[in-house]
Amino acid sequence: MPINPNAARPRIVVIGCGFGGLEATRALKSAAVDITLVERTNHHLFQPLLYQVATAGLSAPAIAAPARHLFRKQANVTTLLGDVTAIDTQARLVKLEEGPPVPYDHLIVAAGATHSYFGRDDWAPFAPGLKTLDDAFEIRRRILLAFEAAEKEPDPALRAAWLTFVVVGGGPTGVEMAGTLAEIAHHTLAGEFRRIDPSAARILLLEGGPRVLQAMPEDLSARAKEQLEKLGVEVRLGARVVAIDGRTVEVQGVDGPHAAQTIHTRCVVWAAGVAASALGRQLAQATGATTDRAGRVVVEPDLGLPGHAEISVIGDLAAARSFAPGLEPRPVPGVSPAAKQMGRAAAANILRRIAGQPTRPFRYRDYGNLATIGRNAAVVDLASPLGHFKFSGYFAWLFWLFAHIYFLIGFRNRLVVLIDWASAYWSKQRYARVISDIAQRPRM
Amino acid sequence: MPINPNAARPRIVVIGCGFGGLEATRALKSAAVDITLVERTNHHLFQPLLYQVATAGLSAPAIAAPARHLFRKQANVTTLLGDVTAIDTQARLVKLEEGPPVPYDHLIVAAGATHSYFGRDDWAPFAPGLKTLDDAFEIRRRILLAFEAAEKEPDPALRAAWLTFVVVGGGPTGVEMAGTLAEIAHHTLAGEFRRIDPSAARILLLEGGPRVLQAMPEDLSARAKEQLEKLGVEVRLGARVVAIDGRTVEVQGVDGPHAAQTIHTRCVVWAAGVAASALGRQLAQATGATTDRAGRVVVEPDLGLPGHAEISVIGDLAAARSFAPGLEPRPVPGVSPAAKQMGRAAAANILRRIAGQPTRPFRYRDYGNLATIGRNAAVVDLASPLGHFKFSGYFAWLFWLFAHIYFLIGFRNRLVVLIDWASAYWSKQRYARVISDIAQRPRM
Repeated sequence: MPINPNAARPRIVVIGCGFGGLEATRALKSAAVDITLVERTNHHLFQPLLYQVATAGLSAPAIAAPARHLFRKQANVTTLLGDVTAIDTQARLVKLEEGPPVPYDHLIVAAGATHSYFGRDDWAPFAPGLKTLDDAFEIRRRILLAFEAAEKEPDPALRAAWLTFVVVGGGPTGVEMAGTLAEIAHHTLAGEFRRIDPSAARILLLEGGPRVLQAMPEDLSARAKEQLEKLGVEVRLGARVVAIDGRTVEVQGVDGPHAAQTIHTRCVVWAAGVAASALGRQLAQATGATTDRAGRVVVEPDLGLPGHAEISVIGDLAAARSFAPGLEPRPVPGVSPAAKQMGRAAAANILRRIAGQPTRPFRYRDYGNLATIGRNAAVVDLASPLGHFKFSGYFAWLFWLFAHIYFLIGFRNRLVVLIDWASAYWSKQRYARVISDIAQRPRM
Repeated sequence: MPINPNAARPRIVVIGCGFGGLEATRALKSAAVDITLVERTNHHLFQPLLYQVATAGLSAPAIAAPARHLFRKQANVTTLLGDVTAIDTQARLVKLEEGPPVPYDHLIVAAGATHSYFGRDDWAPFAPGLKTLDDAFEIRRRILLAFEAAEKEPDPALRAAWLTFVVVGGGPTGVEMAGTLAEIAHHTLAGEFRRIDPSAARILLLEGGPRVLQAMPEDLSARAKEQLEKLGVEVRLGARVVAIDGRTVEVQGVDGPHAAQTIHTRCVVWAAGVAASALGRQLAQATGATTDRAGRVVVEPDLGLPGHAEISVIGDLAAARSFAPGLEPRPVPGVSPAAKQMGRAAAANILRRIAGQPTRPFRYRDYGNLATIGRNAAVVDLASPLGHFKFSGYFAWLFWLFAHIYFLIGFRNRLVVLIDWASAYWSKQRYARVISDIAQRPRM
């Protein structure tokens, strides 16, 4: 007999309310189970648009919806705000920083990833990454205050340093940040300053590899680079960052493998590395599972842990493979559609286990890849049964825009985001230029 | 010859970009002067709607517009982000925390007010006031986290304490906060929790005086109290707060002058006292002007300082009187229309002084007073040449709504605020329920 007499229904705990946790919880809507959704923040964040908050284009509430609200009508869900400190895989308990531990029969771990400085955590204060709303506020604050500081700075060299923005990492976030920064400098702030010319700002995108957007086909990477340069971004490929100290960024490899370059800048955005949540390593240690170099937990074909089928790991925390009939297993990319699909698959496999049926291996369906670059500029690589369909430029940007608005959670958000964007597009303005914590001065 | 050869045009410095500073700067649009607008935050805040940010109804950018942006087309304005530390009235310099001092020929001080704890600053950590966006975020965080904590709390007495909200002060802000809190508890959060019933929350409004909204006619105060009670707010008049310690609020006077009452609560909002910016006292000391009990600077009929006609003090920082022909001078209330009118009057008097003309005494034109209470509830007291026109309830609420949207700065804001409100009204939802700084737990 179960310990809890009310727990005749299987108890499912979902950790995390990102795309994976949200979809898993939704997929269990009609199941006779009791779900506890444990979330560290009180909101689901639409992360693909987080760079818009960091660049003052959208307000935080436009891309964040309370998980509690999203599940208000799903009666089998209890939402709990709390920080998971450990998982007791023997007693089957999720331990929280505050309050009693939460027992589970089935556990879905979707704790996601954070940014990684590749062992150089001392760079963190000088180069914030972009994963949470707080990160976005901090970056927004730094960008806006850099222009304010430049306006007040009499020394031309220092003024130039305030007006130099460095984005490290040429993945989707880095490309979006650099493109939008160029838009801010050239359009948004035009005419607002009296002593500086914001369009004189330099925006540098540093990428260690040979091309930007490496998940894209090579020709689209080339198109993206062209579009960035057209927007005024200096793209440096093969550029390895070797030092960041709040005054300068030291780069190697741009002009030959041993040539070093010093960039004077007061605003650096880190968009280079991703590391899985620390919960992954803890879980691996407890269960004997392995983790990959990025700290992701290597899962079985059905997304369960070896020897612990009652625990599934999904989303950015999982090193998963896709199993398609007749094809070799392929690694699943760390993108939101994959997280959503894993959420649905893990939920379905739990229901199969409850019903005494065998679980099924996860299959990732790739519908393609798209990335925006800036005003009127994006690249799209659509995967269809007829092959890949690639395009870039204005039409790709429209496609990206409507795809993102379509996938936003909740009707109200979609409408407001559409209006915000339409008004921003025509006016070339960005309305969310609030610096709330002004007393905290930008670091030197 | 002037020190600065470019300064043949009179140099006007405006301190503060609230309603007063903004209107003064605008009024000088076509004047042959050089204006420096010194602001401590980077935005003009539409303070009448700040309670909506504190109660998750609006996002911060919806009610805050960068001053720099508002004046981008007014070529005679230079906007400077900076904290004024002192005014050297002899050398005519405004000293900033950072950077060189700003010289002036004419100075308009519109530094506003902050909340006052009547000498009990030790209450501040337990009872935040509502003057800035940061204040609003803090109050929003506390309100939302109180419901989250209640959901996790097994002890019924503690749960009841988490679900008890106390608003201190029955002025417009206190009434709005209490009414909106009732709306959140009864409508917004309905059905979202599994262990608590949010509508069981108690909302108490404590007012030391004999009625709420004391600036209103007595019958409208009574109507406001009725409407608050209909929304579920417990209104306690004659209630003097004698202690706040983060666990309890000690009140005297509700059941007789000496009866004490202890309210167990974890969320207190301070809407009781207003104190003028510290710059007022500094200015008074330097010029020999006097300040009133609230720290406001007593100004001359033309808003200038005695013996320092080149300095005008306006808005909430000024203890000003209104001079209407044939009437006794009357004190000017601390409301935004008065601040705006003072801004225009101070600007006009500066232009008269530059032209060698005599200045004019300030005359406050009172168009009435309006306050919202909550869903469909408001009181309006319109002043017209035919006398006062008073109404309350649904029509008053609509009037309040459109008046506020009309006066919002900037077209985009108005439209988005209207949509937000329309959607919030029909859905009974509040979309800005973001807790960003979640790690910072509510105080016990």
